[in-house]
Amino acid sequence: MSITQNLSISFSSSSSPFLAPSTFNSRSQVSLPVKSVSICKCVATPQEVDTAYKTKVSRNENMGKLQAGYLFPEIARRRSAHLLKYPDAKIISLGIGDTTEPIPEVITSALAKKSHALSTIEGYSGYGAEQGEKPLRSALASTFYADLGIEDDDIFVSDGAKCDISRLQIVFGSNVKMAVQDPSYPAYVDSSVIMGQTGLYQKDVQKFANIEYMRCNPENGFFPDLSSISRPDIIFFCSPNNPTGAAATREQLIQLVQFAKDNGSIIVYDSAYAMYISGDNPRSIYEIPGAKEVAIETSSFSKYAGFTGVRLGWTVVPKQLLFSDGFPVAKDFNRIVCTCFNGASNISQAGGLACLSPEGLKAMQEVIGFYKENTSIIVETFDSLGFKVYGGKCAPYVWVHFPGQNSWDVFSEILEKTHVVTTPGSGFGPGGEGFVRVSAFGHRENILEACRRFKQLYK
Amino acid sequence: MSITQNLSISFSSSSSPFLAPSTFNSRSQVSLPVKSVSICKCVATPQEVDTAYKTKVSRNENMGKLQAGYLFPEIARRRSAHLLKYPDAKIISLGIGDTTEPIPEVITSALAKKSHALSTIEGYSGYGAEQGEKPLRSALASTFYADLGIEDDDIFVSDGAKCDISRLQIVFGSNVKMAVQDPSYPAYVDSSVIMGQTGLYQKDVQKFANIEYMRCNPENGFFPDLSSISRPDIIFFCSPNNPTGAAATREQLIQLVQFAKDNGSIIVYDSAYAMYISGDNPRSIYEIPGAKEVAIETSSFSKYAGFTGVRLGWTVVPKQLLFSDGFPVAKDFNRIVCTCFNGASNISQAGGLACLSPEGLKAMQEVIGFYKENTSIIVETFDSLGFKVYGGKCAPYVWVHFPGQNSWDVFSEILEKTHVVTTPGSGFGPGGEGFVRVSAFGHRENILEACRRFKQLYK
Repeated sequence: MSITQNLSISFSSSSSPFLAPSTFNSRSQVSLPVKSVSICKCVATPQEVDTAYKTKVSRNENMGKLQAGYLFPEIARRRSAHLLKYPDAKIISLGIGDTTEPIPEVITSALAKKSHALSTIEGYSGYGAEQGEKPLRSALASTFYADLGIEDDDIFVSDGAKCDISRLQIVFGSNVKMAVQDPSYPAYVDSSVIMGQTGLYQKDVQKFANIEYMRCNPENGFFPDLSSISRPDIIFFCSPNNPTGAAATREQLIQLVQFAKDNGSIIVYDSAYAMYISGDNPRSIYEIPGAKEVAIETSSFSKYAGFTGVRLGWTVVPKQLLFSDGFPVAKDFNRIVCTCFNGASNISQAGGLACLSPEGLKAMQEVIGFYKENTSIIVETFDSLGFKVYGGKCAPYVWVHFPGQNSWDVFSEILEKTHVVTTPGSGFGPGGEGFVRVSAFGHRENILEACRRFKQLYK
Repeated sequence: MSITQNLSISFSSSSSPFLAPSTFNSRSQVSLPVKSVSICKCVATPQEVDTAYKTKVSRNENMGKLQAGYLFPEIARRRSAHLLKYPDAKIISLGIGDTTEPIPEVITSALAKKSHALSTIEGYSGYGAEQGEKPLRSALASTFYADLGIEDDDIFVSDGAKCDISRLQIVFGSNVKMAVQDPSYPAYVDSSVIMGQTGLYQKDVQKFANIEYMRCNPENGFFPDLSSISRPDIIFFCSPNNPTGAAATREQLIQLVQFAKDNGSIIVYDSAYAMYISGDNPRSIYEIPGAKEVAIETSSFSKYAGFTGVRLGWTVVPKQLLFSDGFPVAKDFNRIVCTCFNGASNISQAGGLACLSPEGLKAMQEVIGFYKENTSIIVETFDSLGFKVYGGKCAPYVWVHFPGQNSWDVFSEILEKTHVVTTPGSGFGPGGEGFVRVSAFGHRENILEACRRFKQLYK
């Protein structure tokens, strides 16, 4: 089995057959042989580079600052290499955090209904509003922000939180200083580097210059010591946190909002796992008084409805949030959404609306409940093996401590000996060193089997 | 009828009912009243700005350079204002270039089939490869680039060409100088401004500083005099052109590629209308020898299959294209695609694959044929009225000359007297002054009715 085939199993299970090439106007009908595709397969060899024609366009120096590959493709690459080494291994992926359970039928029916409608005169629609369809914006406001003072037109529907993070970075531009939780979801730091907000990567501390890394660890209850942080313009804050699984308390978020107000900073609050919260931790930053003047919130249907492949998210930019000159942040974000984006797929949006119906919400809660049961199984397993385990109560991620060990080494050992893919904590920042993130997204039998193998390895 | 309602008719015809808010965990069940949504409705009044809390984050100065709103939302705004003035007017939109005809059933069936499959264990898929699914990349390569030396892994599937243009600008960064056809699709210039590649807008010449505006007009056959252009890093070139409808000849494209090679420039070739070409003009820049070393090509299913709302496009970055230091452009683009994007919707991709089946290609050709008949009707109408008319043979746009007139004035007069929305040429750059773009996307009866009204106005 080739790398290519493995990758296609790993990342895509489309069952659509390859359709033979057909006549296209005056073009030749002779098709090229189907080449194998692999991720990141576009590196010229040194020899090619030496002799080949080069343009005179300088490479963007910010791109050159980035380290290795983006985390998850790198993990996919290692997984593929492992399969090449052990072609018969039954690999279980608890790495990338990819949803595995089918989308509830009440939602896929709406997706299919919209698809069919597009072939009728009455049901066809072309360009939608870049900001999203009005009924979906209304449903998001009333479902997630009722009584919180967020209005329909504060909400921008998108193709996912990751994409919105980059669009927000474009709004902010290169002359801002950002702070991130350490560890955190790597897209925050990488998009900051790409936009030129940072200095070079400093190998000794494993940090980019000109970013505030706000250490979150068991000692501080995974909430940073804000008194030690110098003033940032933009604070990326994810709760429940990816990767630690920690959900900030109301008191912590009150502190965070006050810190932002004291510093005149803008919080970008990533609440993509809010529906996984048990207990009364806030589900939205806007539950904190005054947050509308300092915070943007971004979220997604990916982990609620299994929309990781369908692509649908949203970002809230309250009209009360102003730059230092009084210009509304929402107005610039709107301009970016109109210029650099053309709205989420109208089919995905129809699915999103179905998600927010009473039946859809119930169905999503059931899927979330299933993954939370998986989480408990993983937590209990590592608990029983004597590990210190964090997260897992309010998030689908279990954050396992391997004190004193290099997390890529732990990742490799687990993969080598159990054929289970996890994520090394240091991939989320230097504060993740000594930890491994285990994702609870998986079929039940795979979670159980992975836990059996963990028990075998660490008994 | 309110502005809001008009806008929703204008931009979105989703028939999904508004779903009532439901319980969401511990949140209040009281919902906010449904507020009216309007595009760009996030301007604080001066009074609010004076007294409101402001953050200390400076507004990105590049955003401040942009002029007014992005063109098409601005036209939507004027259309809405017109409907407010004439609530009973039967407005016909030949402005934004939005497709109107239903998507062929062979394609929507595939969209629906994929939707349903997502609710089954076997058919479910989560995150796909950020670069697109392998079968779709293969089908794009063999359908559009057979014999041109473009391989599957040179092709990046996306949610549309407009989005890819911004992602390409992120790759290039702020230290490049770009050139655009004048007139041209406004996203090229606006994304360049946003990325900080330009100086300020110069009102007297209606151009941004540090962009080369390559004038394309009837006198030069809508192909720029390249000898008068100082060296650009990046050349945005759209053929068939939006808005002029001109398709470059093979000889012209050979000149363009040579110009890029002489200057070490990179061409971003927008071929989103290539399937509208009649005759033997090249459909892809890669038909020109040597283009793979100097050109990126971006395209889209929007105007082929009516996917303006479904969202699916692609960009070709050949591995032969290198920055001045020999680093492959594709490798940086891949990194951006992985960090700032998460792939196109898997449902849309299933639709794209169906588009490229023999039946899908035939169905797309029929839709394109329909719009081309519309184009002929519009061309003949303006011809018969004595106007100089350009475009329309290889593109769904007709470029009508109103010599000596201000194109916003012409736009306003047409709207006021015929209730037909067009697009003022100057919205595409100073070179568009004195022209109006009439889009051929419309139901046949609307095209015929619009032409009757034009004849009434200009008889």
